[in-house]
Amino acid sequence: MKDTKPLILVTNDDGISAPGIKALIEVMSTIGEVIVVAPDKPQSAMGHAITINNTLYLDKISKENDSIEKYSSSGTPVDCVKFAVNEILKRKPDICVSGINHGSNSSINVIYSGTMSAAVEAGIEGIPAIGFSLLDYDWNADFEPVKSFVKKIVEQTLKNKLPEGVILNVNFPKLKEEEIKGIKICRQAKAYYSQKFDKRKTPFGKDYYWLAGEFVNQDKGEDTDEWALENGYISVVPVQFDLTAHHSIQQLNNWNLNE
Amino acid sequence: MKDTKPLILVTNDDGISAPGIKALIEVMSTIGEVIVVAPDKPQSAMGHAITINNTLYLDKISKENDSIEKYSSSGTPVDCVKFAVNEILKRKPDICVSGINHGSNSSINVIYSGTMSAAVEAGIEGIPAIGFSLLDYDWNADFEPVKSFVKKIVEQTLKNKLPEGVILNVNFPKLKEEEIKGIKICRQAKAYYSQKFDKRKTPFGKDYYWLAGEFVNQDKGEDTDEWALENGYISVVPVQFDLTAHHSIQQLNNWNLNE
Repeated sequence: MKDTKPLILVTNDDGISAPGIKALIEVMSTIGEVIVVAPDKPQSAMGHAITINNTLYLDKISKENDSIEKYSSSGTPVDCVKFAVNEILKRKPDICVSGINHGSNSSINVIYSGTMSAAVEAGIEGIPAIGFSLLDYDWNADFEPVKSFVKKIVEQTLKNKLPEGVILNVNFPKLKEEEIKGIKICRQAKAYYSQKFDKRKTPFGKDYYWLAGEFVNQDKGEDTDEWALENGYISVVPVQFDLTAHHSIQQLNNWNLNE
Repeated sequence: MKDTKPLILVTNDDGISAPGIKALIEVMSTIGEVIVVAPDKPQSAMGHAITINNTLYLDKISKENDSIEKYSSSGTPVDCVKFAVNEILKRKPDICVSGINHGSNSSINVIYSGTMSAAVEAGIEGIPAIGFSLLDYDWNADFEPVKSFVKKIVEQTLKNKLPEGVILNVNFPKLKEEEIKGIKICRQAKAYYSQKFDKRKTPFGKDYYWLAGEFVNQDKGEDTDEWALENGYISVVPVQFDLTAHHSIQQLNNWNLNE
């Protein structure tokens, strides 16, 4: 009988010094053996970027007698997962958890998110994976209310096993623990960003821009992550990395592409 | 009756000076009115990264009497699409084409690809979009053999309309035109990278790494993009950006998440 503790890889995209990853490490320590490999600086909105045209650094930052092994890397969140799996860990971890992100990764944010891309990368490598995000962008966001839920979701994932090719995108509403109504399995709401560019001038007179914009939810469904979060629930969306739109293959076969 | 020429947005991830985008611009000019907005430097493997923690530059690089309007940006491929739609174009383009990438974006590469992320971004904004890639990483790759196929695929897409929420990932085998057997609608092959890090030392004695590795196709199916490309076909995979694993929602509802 196997009674060793699960091996848990922790990463994020806000950087290794973010309060969100500290909260996640604290909860994971109560479940298993924890190893942390995270970016040395914030890497939000990095999507599934990897570093192929530049060098990478990896530094062990934990001391000899620290209970948790920690590494920081100059790379993206996806690079960190690759470092963990290929350079650091002696065996495949039992689970990879990413976050807790400072800010939402619900709906279309899943595509831009470094937090979720780290989890997706673990999924591609055959590791069960979960990305956690709190709907509070503040660096000093309060992660206390969600800790018991993080623990439950990880324990249930270790127990029930994820379907093949599926990882979880978990978002927490910004509420007190007693205000949270429960956990809902959801689909990704259909939404986009109505983008604006904030145009400014450098001290030398050259135009430059900041990307800005507004999240627009076009989806009125009550089975979406946006609905769940607006109504006081924690949203859990199963996410896949087979991007094939299987339902449209037949339709495309009717095009005259080979005539 | 509408008889204006289609408005075509061209972008890529290899940068505006890459031969691949030049080939694409040349073909698109025979179909419609072309506007180019592309990165000012190579941005391969940027995934769906956007620039939110840094400033962005956008420069018009075409001259007054050039027939094609061209802009370069310091941002990622996704930033370029956002610039085009929100800062440059007066109306929504009829189609966005990205590429032609120097190198494959078949199978799991779709997730890491800047070329494909630009196309996905256009799709999110409701613009029909196609990413094109040639299985030849060489900067001096020969794009002549694929030009007639690029034209046919774009014309068929304009005529038939893509299903909602679907864009196309097109990959070309590195073959002579007469050797190409045809165009196949495919699913994304299940594959991953067996990654290795190449560890070196800086002149100052510090360890650093290069990401390296090998593509591993685990998928023996004959309906995949990998199979098509290995057998002399052009692969066309319909790609969606609703990442929800809808088929697994019921299974997850059986977990004890709310007890």
